[in-house]
Amino acid sequence: MKNSRRSAVDPFIVMDVVQSAAEAEAAGRRIIHMEVGQPGTRAPALARSAVAAALDAQPLGYTVTLGLPVLRRSIAQLYARWYGITLDPARVVVTTGSSGAFLLAFSALFDTGARVGVCEPGYPSYRHILKALGLSAVGVPTHAAAGHRLRPSDLPDGLEGLILASPNNPTGTIHDRAELAALIARCSEAGTAFVSDEIYHGLHYGDRAVSALEISDDVYVINSFSKYFSMTGWRVGWMVVPPDQVRVIERLAQNMFVCAPHVSQVAALAALDAADELEQNRAHYAENRRLMLEGLPKAGFARLAPPDGAFYCYADVSDLTDDSRALASRMLAEAGVAVTPGLDFDPVRGSQTLRFSYAATTADIQEGLARLADFMRRWQGTRAAG
Amino acid sequence: MKNSRRSAVDPFIVMDVVQSAAEAEAAGRRIIHMEVGQPGTRAPALARSAVAAALDAQPLGYTVTLGLPVLRRSIAQLYARWYGITLDPARVVVTTGSSGAFLLAFSALFDTGARVGVCEPGYPSYRHILKALGLSAVGVPTHAAAGHRLRPSDLPDGLEGLILASPNNPTGTIHDRAELAALIARCSEAGTAFVSDEIYHGLHYGDRAVSALEISDDVYVINSFSKYFSMTGWRVGWMVVPPDQVRVIERLAQNMFVCAPHVSQVAALAALDAADELEQNRAHYAENRRLMLEGLPKAGFARLAPPDGAFYCYADVSDLTDDSRALASRMLAEAGVAVTPGLDFDPVRGSQTLRFSYAATTADIQEGLARLADFMRRWQGTRAAG
Repeated sequence: MKNSRRSAVDPFIVMDVVQSAAEAEAAGRRIIHMEVGQPGTRAPALARSAVAAALDAQPLGYTVTLGLPVLRRSIAQLYARWYGITLDPARVVVTTGSSGAFLLAFSALFDTGARVGVCEPGYPSYRHILKALGLSAVGVPTHAAAGHRLRPSDLPDGLEGLILASPNNPTGTIHDRAELAALIARCSEAGTAFVSDEIYHGLHYGDRAVSALEISDDVYVINSFSKYFSMTGWRVGWMVVPPDQVRVIERLAQNMFVCAPHVSQVAALAALDAADELEQNRAHYAENRRLMLEGLPKAGFARLAPPDGAFYCYADVSDLTDDSRALASRMLAEAGVAVTPGLDFDPVRGSQTLRFSYAATTADIQEGLARLADFMRRWQGTRAAG
Repeated sequence: MKNSRRSAVDPFIVMDVVQSAAEAEAAGRRIIHMEVGQPGTRAPALARSAVAAALDAQPLGYTVTLGLPVLRRSIAQLYARWYGITLDPARVVVTTGSSGAFLLAFSALFDTGARVGVCEPGYPSYRHILKALGLSAVGVPTHAAAGHRLRPSDLPDGLEGLILASPNNPTGTIHDRAELAALIARCSEAGTAFVSDEIYHGLHYGDRAVSALEISDDVYVINSFSKYFSMTGWRVGWMVVPPDQVRVIERLAQNMFVCAPHVSQVAALAALDAADELEQNRAHYAENRRLMLEGLPKAGFARLAPPDGAFYCYADVSDLTDDSRALASRMLAEAGVAVTPGLDFDPVRGSQTLRFSYAATTADIQEGLARLADFMRRWQGTRAAG
């Protein structure tokens, strides 16, 4: 059967690594998961209790397209707690994960051929979703020397949109208020729609991340219950859009999604009250991060991007290999540690980088670091002998 | 903020009716729901028990992108039970509802500007999703005189794809094996990709519907747990694609969705074993249908499309109005019965049609029919007086 040109997207390599790791586990091996951006913790206990109670008490049919009104109100209140912002719940759209939010935002904002800036390194699906929609991703490289911070002067002319994630995946970089404000101002002048991916908000280890909504109302903000709220598999997220965008998004969402999963909306509502458990999770990531920053350099991965937030370490391995995919495959096959080759995040320089997630349990992080150290000793031995 | 041209899709009117009905209910009114294609029954008891058991026993994180392997195998076995087909589970893709399947199928098959045939009357989101993806929907009218059956000679030249639903929404029309085979043969000759929407399979009141997979492997088949399996709000469906299409769909789905909701996949797996409860649901629809075919003509809606399957009656109301939207609004406001104006399904002739869903409880159907009869007596009185 003939396929469209737009469907010729690269695989999201991390999902292929997940598949290979699952096959290894099915064959009886114990794999340490440092590949996937997925909390080792499950959904908060309050969220699971709320679902258990709803299963027989509620029909759980379609919700209205924009999401359960009580959930939209509770998300708006989160902006008061986290950022001190008063947000009209009418501007909050519940989505099928941040993935659903990207499909809606890009469809609402861009026509065929539009040029949309994406940071490199950055989340690969931006680029691939844009292509699948007939749009054109323009890679904007950031640099280790600048802490992978994007500056207005880095932006090419003629962009119809810019997607910025702070904290960034894979680097962990957080843009501070002044840096974010400068980028938003530049986009506003240039008529470039600013899409702020805030999916890693809540996961910071120094200063908290600033929301684009603290700076401007004329932005799209995308967030999710997947990361801080530890609910990846539930596929529920949200978007905050300017008031004049709500109806456009509603019409698109009615047709493209009908609604986000009802059961997941019930879970999400309860998760917003689970601050105690979620802050414990964050303390756990902080401990994992400490172990990583200590253990990775010892194992031979010393050149790390600044891990301000999220739960990743992004390592420059150009001193070790020009083929990060082969190195990652060997790590999985020989050490039973799944990591993600940088090619997912940076098609140009990613053959010399790896992303290590520290979202797993602390015991797994310790075991993974020990395996990596052992693997690298053997690898260095091979290279020395070769 | 500037919007794309592709985002200028019509609303899915039924979702606006849902919203209006929800507002009326929030204000304390009792509304009979004949607008939405949603079972009055909840997810099968087995599905709810499976979720309850999984909540604390499983992490419920991301699944692999194509879906839980055991669910893909169980779906393949359904094709043996329902149609006597041996289906390779590797061809089954679990999706975020049929909505997710459409986004994937259209992205995989069609490039910007491609002309894709959609039946009128038919499910409105085909047209709107196509537009949002930069594609071009070509309406192919079907006619009451032909039982709303589509014939090969109805198809215009130059279609890159055709979407056919059998049973159809809103008419209920089922195409028999010969009719379906003729359409698939014509599409094959013309290089037109055939997308078979089988979301209402299992809901038939005479002969069962034939799957496109009984006729050809070179088709996309889309189905869902929403209708027969009574799980609308769970947003889980599936697609069966030709072997050479699996990897294309996997790459797109990795980026556009990551995976379908894990908790819903757990529920879906158990729902496949719930034949007893689901066949009771079908008997209940059959009784509702009997009441509708008796009550609607009595109320004044005598010109109905052949309700072979699904759970809709599609009424020609051209003798009553040229503004089905206004009529539907009055029905909601004055009788508290929510129905869907035909404009959702047929932008040309839908101002003279209404869709009545009989997916609600039998008590609600009886109450709704009584209210409709009463409303129509008053409406006819007003017209006679006017």
